[in-house]
This record gives sequence, C-alpha cells and structure tokens, in this order.
Amino acid sequence: MTAYSTVNPETDLVLERTVDVAPELVWKAWTTPELIVRWFAPKPWSTASCEIDLQPGGKFNTVMRSPEGEDYPSTGCILVVEEGRRLVFTSGLGPGFRPQASGDDLPFTAVISIEPAGDGTRYTATALHADASVKKSHEEMGFAEGWSAALDQLVEVVKAL
Amino acid sequence: MTAYSTVNPETDLVLERTVDVAPELVWKAWTTPELIVRWFAPKPWSTASCEIDLQPGGKFNTVMRSPEGEDYPSTGCILVVEEGRRLVFTSGLGPGFRPQASGDDLPFTAVISIEPAGDGTRYTATALHADASVKKSHEEMGFAEGWSAALDQLVEVVKAL
Repeated sequence: MTAYSTVNPETDLVLERTVDVAPELVWKAWTTPELIVRWFAPKPWSTASCEIDLQPGGKFNTVMRSPEGEDYPSTGCILVVEEGRRLVFTSGLGPGFRPQASGDDLPFTAVISIEPAGDGTRYTATALHADASVKKSHEEMGFAEGWSAALDQLVEVVKAL
Repeated sequence: MTAYSTVNPETDLVLERTVDVAPELVWKAWTTPELIVRWFAPKPWSTASCEIDLQPGGKFNTVMRSPEGEDYPSTGCILVVEEGRRLVFTSGLGPGFRPQASGDDLPFTAVISIEPAGDGTRYTATALHADASVKKSHEEMGFAEGWSAALDQLVEVVKAL
C-alpha cells in the first residue's frame, strides 16, 4: 500500500489529458533516459542529459538546456514505481532519500499517473508543493504550458518508435 | 529493490549497537505509536503524541515535550517499510510525499536497520543529511547521546511487555 497525498487545489498543480498512444509507451517514455532527453524539455529548451535509477531511492536527474545554451541541472529521488501505472519522484530529496541542500527553490513532488483510455492513455501529472506560494511560482514559470508542450513532444517521440 | 544512500561520514551520523531484545520487539517499538510515546524522547524530555501510518507516503509525526512543558511537533513521511528489518522516514517530506515548508531547519532521513544477533538485535540508526553543516548541527544537538538513551528506553519498554 502507498499513501498518496490528496491533491489540494490551493497548493498543487495538475495536468490531465487523454493522448492517443498506449499506456505502455507513455510509461516507457517516462522511464527511459534515451527517450526522456527527446521530449522532457519544451522547445526551444532541450534536455542535455538524463539519469534514472528506476527504484525507490533511485536518482531522477535531468539537465535542461536553455535556448542560449545554459544548463540547469536538477537532482531528484524516485519514491514510487508502479510499473506501467504510476511514477512518483521528488526534488525535495536527492538520490538514496538524502535531503538536498537548499539549492532547489521550487521543491515539488511529481505524481505521474497513467491509465488506459480506449486505445489511448488518460495521463495525469500532479505537482505537489509545500504551500500556495511555491505553487504560484511554479504556475508562473509556466507549468501548464510547459508540461502540456512536453507531453505533445512525448507523444510525437513514441509514435515514431 | 530499493536504492539506499551510501553512508557518508562527512554528512551522516550513525548509531550502531547490539541490544538484548528480539528484532521483532525492536520493530514493534518503532512502529507502534502507543510504544513510541514511551521511549522516543530521551528523559527528561517526553513524547506527548505520535501518529504513524505505516506505509510509504504515510505520516510519521511526533510531538516532543521539553522538561519545561514546551511542545516541539515534527512532521515526517515514511519512505520504506521492510517488515521487521528496515524502516526509512524523512523530515524532508511531509505525509503523502509532499515537500514541507521550510519549517524544519534540520532535515534528515532516518534509516533504522534491525538484524538478528544471537538472541538479540544488531541495531543501526543512520541519519542522512544534505551536507556537513547540518550533520554538525545534529551532532551538537546531541544525536549520539540522545539516540542511544532513547534506545535504552526502548529496550526497557519492550522488556516489560
């Protein structure tokens, strides 16, 4: 059993969409570094690298690259792996469940839920935050547009596999 | 599988002792709120209350009470439950894996390992920190003496069960 946080509209952000690719492909796209680098950062940003150790306590590290070529590394920890259905990771802890130095000013926990919907996938990405101000910052950084554009890229990538 | 952090002497603290009570009793003492309140805080402190939801994502909340009667609540999240062998929880996240507001100035992840040793238990409590300065603060707060005194209390409590 696992106790997921209840989504709180005051502190959390949710992207929910149905896409026309199979759940297995969405799962593969989220858990394969070689695929992540092809879709994770919404263009014109790119993903310079990705490392995933797909188990609780494993690392979920990405380096996003700005259009100007500046790199933004992010270090996170995988918390839950429900094969094909749910992936939970957080920037609030580093690999091995170790607390992180206060480098991350926007800590969030992502819950990626994948459910079959006809021939496609009901996709729900939730970002849990400590409070409303962190949510607001994440919202203003462009959570809705960014995560939706990335999902479009994910669909494009897996359709070409 | 679970990826535990490698213990780093520069950033982490470890209490390792062998105690003459069975592993099952040590596990019970760590996972039963009614028992936690009897041993968790080294005297003359006490534990005013404890709430545990024993599953990944579940809460691990305690209220420690100073000799002067002041309460110090702590909210944490359980990360790993390996029945009878290993319990991992963190103050770096709150219940449901949600990041916590910056209330905790001493975030750590605790790894409690319990192994049979003859008729007793080899007990290893590790506190993982983000960096050496947090470790130092935790050390100066009295980690070694406090966790060892609490373990003595744990042994006393379960022997009387």
